[in-house]
Amino acid sequence: MNELQELAINTIRFLAVDAVQKANSGHPGLPMGAAPMAFTLWTQYLKHNPKNPAWPDRDRFVLSAGHGSMLLYALLYLTGYDSVTMDEMKRFRQHGSKTPGHPEAFHTPGVEATTGPLGQGFANGVGMAIAERYLMEHFNRPGHAIVDHYTYALVSDGDLMEGITAEAASLAGHLKLDKLIYLYDDNKISLAAPTSTTFTEDVPARFAAYGWHVQIVEDGNTDIEGIAGAIAAAQAETERPSLICVQTTIGYGSPNKANTSDVHGSPLGPEEVAATKAALGWPAEDFYVPDAAFELFRAAVDAGAKAEAEWQKRFDAYAAAYPDLAAEFKTFFGGELPGGWEEAIPVFKPESGAAATRNTSGVVLNALAPKLPHLIGGDADLAPSTKTLLKGFDEQQPATPGGRNLRFGVREHAMGGIVNGIAYHGGLIPYGSTFLVFSDYMRGSIRVSALAGLKVLWIFTHDSIFVGEDGPTHEPVEQIASLRAIPGMTVIRPADANEVGEAYRWALRQNGPVSLILSRQNLPIIDRTKFAPAAGLHKGAYILADSEVRPDVILIASGSEVSLALSAAAKLQEQSVGVRVVSMPSWEIFEAQPDDYKESVLPRSVKARVAIEAGVGMGWEKYTGDAGSIIAQDQFGASAPYKELAKAFGFTVERVVEAALKTIEATQ
Amino acid sequence: MNELQELAINTIRFLAVDAVQKANSGHPGLPMGAAPMAFTLWTQYLKHNPKNPAWPDRDRFVLSAGHGSMLLYALLYLTGYDSVTMDEMKRFRQHGSKTPGHPEAFHTPGVEATTGPLGQGFANGVGMAIAERYLMEHFNRPGHAIVDHYTYALVSDGDLMEGITAEAASLAGHLKLDKLIYLYDDNKISLAAPTSTTFTEDVPARFAAYGWHVQIVEDGNTDIEGIAGAIAAAQAETERPSLICVQTTIGYGSPNKANTSDVHGSPLGPEEVAATKAALGWPAEDFYVPDAAFELFRAAVDAGAKAEAEWQKRFDAYAAAYPDLAAEFKTFFGGELPGGWEEAIPVFKPESGAAATRNTSGVVLNALAPKLPHLIGGDADLAPSTKTLLKGFDEQQPATPGGRNLRFGVREHAMGGIVNGIAYHGGLIPYGSTFLVFSDYMRGSIRVSALAGLKVLWIFTHDSIFVGEDGPTHEPVEQIASLRAIPGMTVIRPADANEVGEAYRWALRQNGPVSLILSRQNLPIIDRTKFAPAAGLHKGAYILADSEVRPDVILIASGSEVSLALSAAAKLQEQSVGVRVVSMPSWEIFEAQPDDYKESVLPRSVKARVAIEAGVGMGWEKYTGDAGSIIAQDQFGASAPYKELAKAFGFTVERVVEAALKTIEATQ
Repeated sequence: MNELQELAINTIRFLAVDAVQKANSGHPGLPMGAAPMAFTLWTQYLKHNPKNPAWPDRDRFVLSAGHGSMLLYALLYLTGYDSVTMDEMKRFRQHGSKTPGHPEAFHTPGVEATTGPLGQGFANGVGMAIAERYLMEHFNRPGHAIVDHYTYALVSDGDLMEGITAEAASLAGHLKLDKLIYLYDDNKISLAAPTSTTFTEDVPARFAAYGWHVQIVEDGNTDIEGIAGAIAAAQAETERPSLICVQTTIGYGSPNKANTSDVHGSPLGPEEVAATKAALGWPAEDFYVPDAAFELFRAAVDAGAKAEAEWQKRFDAYAAAYPDLAAEFKTFFGGELPGGWEEAIPVFKPESGAAATRNTSGVVLNALAPKLPHLIGGDADLAPSTKTLLKGFDEQQPATPGGRNLRFGVREHAMGGIVNGIAYHGGLIPYGSTFLVFSDYMRGSIRVSALAGLKVLWIFTHDSIFVGEDGPTHEPVEQIASLRAIPGMTVIRPADANEVGEAYRWALRQNGPVSLILSRQNLPIIDRTKFAPAAGLHKGAYILADSEVRPDVILIASGSEVSLALSAAAKLQEQSVGVRVVSMPSWEIFEAQPDDYKESVLPRSVKARVAIEAGVGMGWEKYTGDAGSIIAQDQFGASAPYKELAKAFGFTVERVVEAALKTIEATQ
Repeated sequence: MNELQELAINTIRFLAVDAVQKANSGHPGLPMGAAPMAFTLWTQYLKHNPKNPAWPDRDRFVLSAGHGSMLLYALLYLTGYDSVTMDEMKRFRQHGSKTPGHPEAFHTPGVEATTGPLGQGFANGVGMAIAERYLMEHFNRPGHAIVDHYTYALVSDGDLMEGITAEAASLAGHLKLDKLIYLYDDNKISLAAPTSTTFTEDVPARFAAYGWHVQIVEDGNTDIEGIAGAIAAAQAETERPSLICVQTTIGYGSPNKANTSDVHGSPLGPEEVAATKAALGWPAEDFYVPDAAFELFRAAVDAGAKAEAEWQKRFDAYAAAYPDLAAEFKTFFGGELPGGWEEAIPVFKPESGAAATRNTSGVVLNALAPKLPHLIGGDADLAPSTKTLLKGFDEQQPATPGGRNLRFGVREHAMGGIVNGIAYHGGLIPYGSTFLVFSDYMRGSIRVSALAGLKVLWIFTHDSIFVGEDGPTHEPVEQIASLRAIPGMTVIRPADANEVGEAYRWALRQNGPVSLILSRQNLPIIDRTKFAPAAGLHKGAYILADSEVRPDVILIASGSEVSLALSAAAKLQEQSVGVRVVSMPSWEIFEAQPDDYKESVLPRSVKARVAIEAGVGMGWEKYTGDAGSIIAQDQFGASAPYKELAKAFGFTVERVVEAALKTIEATQ
């Protein structure tokens, strides 16, 4: 380590120390320890253009240890990103700043992934590397490498303890993602205690067992050449993802707090800040940036512009040779959809018989696949059940890097993080699928998809107690409600095959995550010549069948319960009851409609309402009101053929009719 | 393998095959492949008493691969458990049977853990081994080993792919749980595909890296001696948990489906059943049990009675020597609580100043700890923040096996499964803690705790946007709602220190899981001389402050928003508005009250109601009704000091007052 390098590294350290101290909140320890490796990567290897954070072929850098956010903000500032100014660093963790407590993608250009919940970033990086590999294979042509970058991440002890990381690492090893390079800040301290109290496994051996290329840098505090050499060796590796275990001291430089948990998640305090600056020969001045260090880092601006210009020249040559591909590349990365996809969505006729919505989903996905080559995804070892395989397309495997069918294995949480990572990368629309009940296993990632507003599709099948024989461990009950509870998540539970088609149309047209909730069991295809068109789904809820006069009662249902509502309505009509049936596949879409539309579907004047959904009733009160009633599944299910469960738990025409009549009576 | 052994093994196989075929639903492949190892363990090693599945010192056996439930049911039937009769096997997967699709603890005596969601059983076993270790240390005395058993599990490829397993395995290795012995059914096939498509890591090397003792049995289909020898070697190991990789053929014996995914999760079909019986020389008769095999298995009844009788003799001697300990042992395992614990719960005075409910929780836990020696638990690397450390008690570490403080590391999901495992074991009341937002990471286990009705305490702190500077990744918004959505879960969000005390009282008095939702920030201690006593918590919701006449409006709040409601009420009273303030720490407890109590708290006649909770508003409509309004946090939070967030997101006296006045106006 030469003097200039030390100066530059200490600049990162003290920007982090000072910002955390000013905010009186944050995590100084990681930036202080990891500054040398971050410096090495960002000044010697990282291919990026600070003035264009959206350059498609930039290297991706993920700070999986998101609590060390000031490390990233310092790097973004020093290398010249417009998003993080000195003023923003001084507003660290303040309301409305570009420097929130943990990094937030899109909020702060240059931040590649929203991290903080540990392990997410690790899995995101795996997704980015998969995206890069697929795009390489899809776009590159001999002599034209327009997609060719690395994915780096900085990961911590906490990241490596998380299960999502284990899952993602195992899959990355299997896939031989050789362009994935992770720096592990091996500092032996986590928030609460030294890792000796909880985490004594042999990490290098574990990653070797996953099929990773593992290197160790013993003095990560000062051995810049060692770090640089390891990164170079990782780049040279062509068969395996790389883990570089960089042994560091958390809170490096702090005379009294280095190498302790005290420096993990709390400001050093004014005295220790002063002592640390003294120990490392640093001026007392806050947010001090020496000119030499600044210049060294800011070289990234020119270097980045040059790198992108060279790439642009290559891209222009590519565009001349392959105009269609070049146009497609722009469509992919522009977030647009190629023409013709909407027409590909099939229309289903009642005569074709009943169909499980998971099956229809498979038909629609397969109809879309040829039109949308950037649609890529897979399942957590359940493709035969979730019907998400794209037929006629390869699996993503080391030998078939252009494969669009991702096999995640029984690794739901990693699937979530990887799908998010593909979306972060840009250029692709990813999906992931499993049984609805196992959405619980990946909720950490689902939440981030909503927080970051990622365009991803979660395809959840086997959506209720009507799973049947597998029993209560496999029967979702509370999952629809708990997905609806996530801000920014759109949950759609289609009633039949044609609503499935419209659900895909809606999901693909917009941005942000969508959870599709699909049945295991067959559902009748609603006769749209007799009832309203499925396009009503685009309003979230719509009048499917109506009474000729003002309705006496409104039946509101989603998914498999819509047909039940129609049957009950028929019975009620026989008794001269005026019934409206509202299909309500999505609360969130409905809530976004104008008030007069909402009023037209659920007029305040009709108080007699019955909601029917084979999940917990929580929240349906909003639509049924004080006088209404809810037919729901507020207890766990049971193991039995599903038609028996329908009877046992009361999802029957008789019960709906009874509830409707009772509600009408009560409101008269 | 001798002929009798083969006969016995095939008996297991065909009971599974026939039951799955009869149900026309289920997973025959695993029982067919894993029958030899299960046979070996259950007939040569497992210490159990079929006629008393509750014998405290029995070995625990967990079928982590719960989809192979017929394997376990066949074993329970054959070895003589009363719960699983031949008739019950014939009712496999039928409504109300003792043989549901996946094993359910308590529902079927002899089933030690509810499994099916993969990885849960793996973590449960780790919890059982921790429980055994703690109880050994707590109860055993020289010459008196009254706690001394093994914990076994049968785990699958799918289990080993799950992140929860990685977390639990790493911790088990760290803790050197040498009495944990896992048989891995290494059959290279998962539901959707061969593991070669997704799971090619070196499992033995991975487990060795975790610090496990790893053995391989290459011919798990017929090498009974090899399996037996490996189990014996595992028992002899005194430093490490054991993984025995038993290489088997899924669907062993099926001429056309063995070694394929087809046999994983579907019945063989009548023709293949016949072909398989023919191939293995088995009579065509359904549910055929040869006498010789039956006798061999049923020897477990006498052997089990004898083993328990011997233990009882040892226990009697122990009781004579250590009567107090023996009495305590009975209290522990009887699920009773020793006297005096309720008196230990402190009462907090307003004069002591404001306190975060997480801090009070720490005080209460520490007050209870000396009175309740079977209270044991810990945190996912957040003890300094969640305040769950029991001061003056050891950590659970290899050198301190009597430690009550469990350090789970950054492994939320394993914490969930391990805490559940401790509860399944019996004798202990376990708790686990992390930030509320990370309850998402362990939701798979939380769900099972509710499904199985386990007496566990989930202590979730940092309960709202008032986490502040850490920002939206760390600020729960939807988590309270999504925990409430789980059937059987009781969620309690105390308003102040004294409600915390009552929450612990309530939680410990009853069975079933409780989620405590606690604040990061200080909350005033409500003056109970002016307002109603905190004991009202035992009704879920209670009138904390009331108007002297019929109230014009009811403010309903939980947790940190109760004090806000009181402040708003004071303002409203200044304007001569009659206000009732209802503290509603728990929906579930309130719902369990008689209708007249509910009516007395929230009378139908008072339509003007405002609910206030710093989480999504979903479901509050139930209590506010058509005319009411909800002040909630229906979007993600932000990074800023929490008092700024209160203003930015409208958790202010002004907004509550405004909403109250508006609601009153609208209802007049």
